[in-house]
Amino acid sequence: MLLAKIAIGDLNAHDLDRGFLETLTSLSEVEIPLEEAVKVLRNRLRAGVFTYVARNEDRPVGTVTLLVEDKFIHGGGKVGHIEDVAVHRDYQHQGIGAALVRHATEQARALGCYKAILNCSDQLVPLYEQLGYHHHDNGMRIDFK
Amino acid sequence: MLLAKIAIGDLNAHDLDRGFLETLTSLSEVEIPLEEAVKVLRNRLRAGVFTYVARNEDRPVGTVTLLVEDKFIHGGGKVGHIEDVAVHRDYQHQGIGAALVRHATEQARALGCYKAILNCSDQLVPLYEQLGYHHHDNGMRIDFK
Repeated sequence: MLLAKIAIGDLNAHDLDRGFLETLTSLSEVEIPLEEAVKVLRNRLRAGVFTYVARNEDRPVGTVTLLVEDKFIHGGGKVGHIEDVAVHRDYQHQGIGAALVRHATEQARALGCYKAILNCSDQLVPLYEQLGYHHHDNGMRIDFK
Repeated sequence: MLLAKIAIGDLNAHDLDRGFLETLTSLSEVEIPLEEAVKVLRNRLRAGVFTYVARNEDRPVGTVTLLVEDKFIHGGGKVGHIEDVAVHRDYQHQGIGAALVRHATEQARALGCYKAILNCSDQLVPLYEQLGYHHHDNGMRIDFK
């Protein structure tokens, strides 16, 4: 069982060219030079954005992001935004994505968030419902490029 | 015409007890002591979270938040998350909310975001469509308290 070998932890700079950026290509185009990725990681750490990776024998094969937002409402409460769930194409359909979302959700709770939110396509709604999420509202977007 | 007197700018600490926190109560419960709100503002500034206010003669009567997220995908692109649009109950239905969302959207574009996203209830979809947004996906949430 592959999942027994999977360990989830924080992304570090060494992960970037050891499978992390390649894993993200399952989600969208990446096309980022390594030096630029290091800068993005630094900016994210500074902003309190948590990037988790699932590693198979030290090689990142999945990732999820947790962005913790400090609100004025809810008594100065925090909201966890779950973003960019991605699993390397060779490791999909083995529950790694679900394990990553569970991890990020638990971290959001542990960090004191009063809720966690995420956006997904119609076909993923049942999967997230299994993970304890419910449909709440509409995701709207505007594209600039 | 009231709107002629409205000016949109960045939230500062002086706004907090001059109508800003009261304005947010139109959105959700606030219940935050002033000293705590000052800390939240400081955390948000450090994290690169922009809070804009619409002022009527120096008194905040509306607000919107723009959270800029640095991504690894899209060549290290940025995404603007628009959050917590609120207008004071005495100033609603005058286009202030729409003006705030337009402002935050323009700021997202100016800051180099490749898209801006927001979540809304069914009845607000037509309003956001008028502002250039389209329905993209499902907003899911899990509550911890």
